[in-house]
Amino acid sequence: MKRSDRLVAMTNYLVDRPRELVSLPFFSDKYDAAKSSISEDLTIINSMFQHEGIGHLQTVSGASGGVKYIPTFSDAYSRTFVTQLCRQLEDPGRILPGGYLFMSDVLGDPGTVRDIGRLFASAFSDRQVDVVMTVATKGIPLAYAVAAYLNVPVVIARRDPKVTEGATVSTNYVSGSTRKIQTMVLTKRSLEEGSRVCIIDDFMKAGGTINGMKNLLKEFNAHVAGVGVLAEAEDEEEERVVHDYISLVQILNVDDRNQTIDVHPGNLLEEI
Amino acid sequence: MKRSDRLVAMTNYLVDRPRELVSLPFFSDKYDAAKSSISEDLTIINSMFQHEGIGHLQTVSGASGGVKYIPTFSDAYSRTFVTQLCRQLEDPGRILPGGYLFMSDVLGDPGTVRDIGRLFASAFSDRQVDVVMTVATKGIPLAYAVAAYLNVPVVIARRDPKVTEGATVSTNYVSGSTRKIQTMVLTKRSLEEGSRVCIIDDFMKAGGTINGMKNLLKEFNAHVAGVGVLAEAEDEEEERVVHDYISLVQILNVDDRNQTIDVHPGNLLEEI
Repeated sequence: MKRSDRLVAMTNYLVDRPRELVSLPFFSDKYDAAKSSISEDLTIINSMFQHEGIGHLQTVSGASGGVKYIPTFSDAYSRTFVTQLCRQLEDPGRILPGGYLFMSDVLGDPGTVRDIGRLFASAFSDRQVDVVMTVATKGIPLAYAVAAYLNVPVVIARRDPKVTEGATVSTNYVSGSTRKIQTMVLTKRSLEEGSRVCIIDDFMKAGGTINGMKNLLKEFNAHVAGVGVLAEAEDEEEERVVHDYISLVQILNVDDRNQTIDVHPGNLLEEI
Repeated sequence: MKRSDRLVAMTNYLVDRPRELVSLPFFSDKYDAAKSSISEDLTIINSMFQHEGIGHLQTVSGASGGVKYIPTFSDAYSRTFVTQLCRQLEDPGRILPGGYLFMSDVLGDPGTVRDIGRLFASAFSDRQVDVVMTVATKGIPLAYAVAAYLNVPVVIARRDPKVTEGATVSTNYVSGSTRKIQTMVLTKRSLEEGSRVCIIDDFMKAGGTINGMKNLLKEFNAHVAGVGVLAEAEDEEEERVVHDYISLVQILNVDDRNQTIDVHPGNLLEEI
């Protein structure tokens, strides 16, 4: 196979399998080329990935070594993306009764969801995440997008205990917005003890739901490796109970009556 | 930029944006190369995509023309993938009380979900799908995976009418497994009238839930462009109410008492 053909095939192979270790002999066999040629191909691919701001190839040395594609987003693209998201969400037509915000169209667009996943995966890149967790329903697509780039599985907690998944572990938590005691359950066999878990959700006010997930993780002796929320909003009635988190956007001054709203970049942009 | 660099960058650009029309002048500007060179690059990329069995580039001619990456899976890979899925699901340890099957680990693996999405997107490639629909919760990751490859948005119906998304349209349907009358709601502004909708779900017995989604679509004057389910199972008590669908696997003879189960390829493999 010619170099030009190999570059197309190998690029596709790598971007399709983020954080998966691929050995040089594997590529060498698959594309019928000398290891030295494969090595040169990988140098070209690595420098182009960095040039395009989509990540880099990590070299793992040793007998069982190889390369891993670590997807990230350039700071410049992150800024552009978050700023565009703010403009999109600032539309007063999104304000729903009770000061909620209509975001289903944003969360329904696979391209946007993919980029959000990539941003969080970039931010949590060094946190040694074993599994991504969310609670049904709206956080699910975001959790999968993050997990795909981190190459780890997803577990989904539910507020509804009527699951047909066998034994479950449940916890109670106080919802920040309604101040009611709610229940959250997770299937027992879905999470291993001691896992490092990245919690992802679409929306956070006081943080009651996120706290519910943290409590649930304690029952599994699991560790919180990070918390990421798409949008954080003020809660005037209650102080925030979650402090260590990354947000993409901040929703401020939602005025139901005058139909005005401010959306600012979240704390993710402060970190880059 | 050299050809080798361009091939890496363009391959990544295209696989990241399935079914998105990209013009030759765009590539020509972005990578500072003559249109004739870009055209040669695209020929190399197209033939390698076909060689690797991951799809092809579709050329759209005319002033506003360009190329689109149409992702598909080769028949050989589809067979291998479905056969592996059958072996994975046939584990008797998956049998849950009531003859249900534990599939959360399969549905929790982003790589598997991505491949399932790709298979359905391949199968529905010519159906002119405008939007993918599912009902919360377990079908959501599959719906997003299909939608990503079809480059269309996702809408999610809910069984729970307590949504904070503004006005909703609701319908009643009879659940095949419980024979109860259930309600399904969809936010009014989430779906345009006349849309061509691909329905995706994880599991189908008699098909009551799928039928509920079909009824809901009638209220939006929308058309069913296709129905895809990951697993279909026998329902001894009721005849199937949905007939035109594509399934990846068929679950047969679930014996709760003796802990045995058969999993066969679904009708998708009959069509290829």
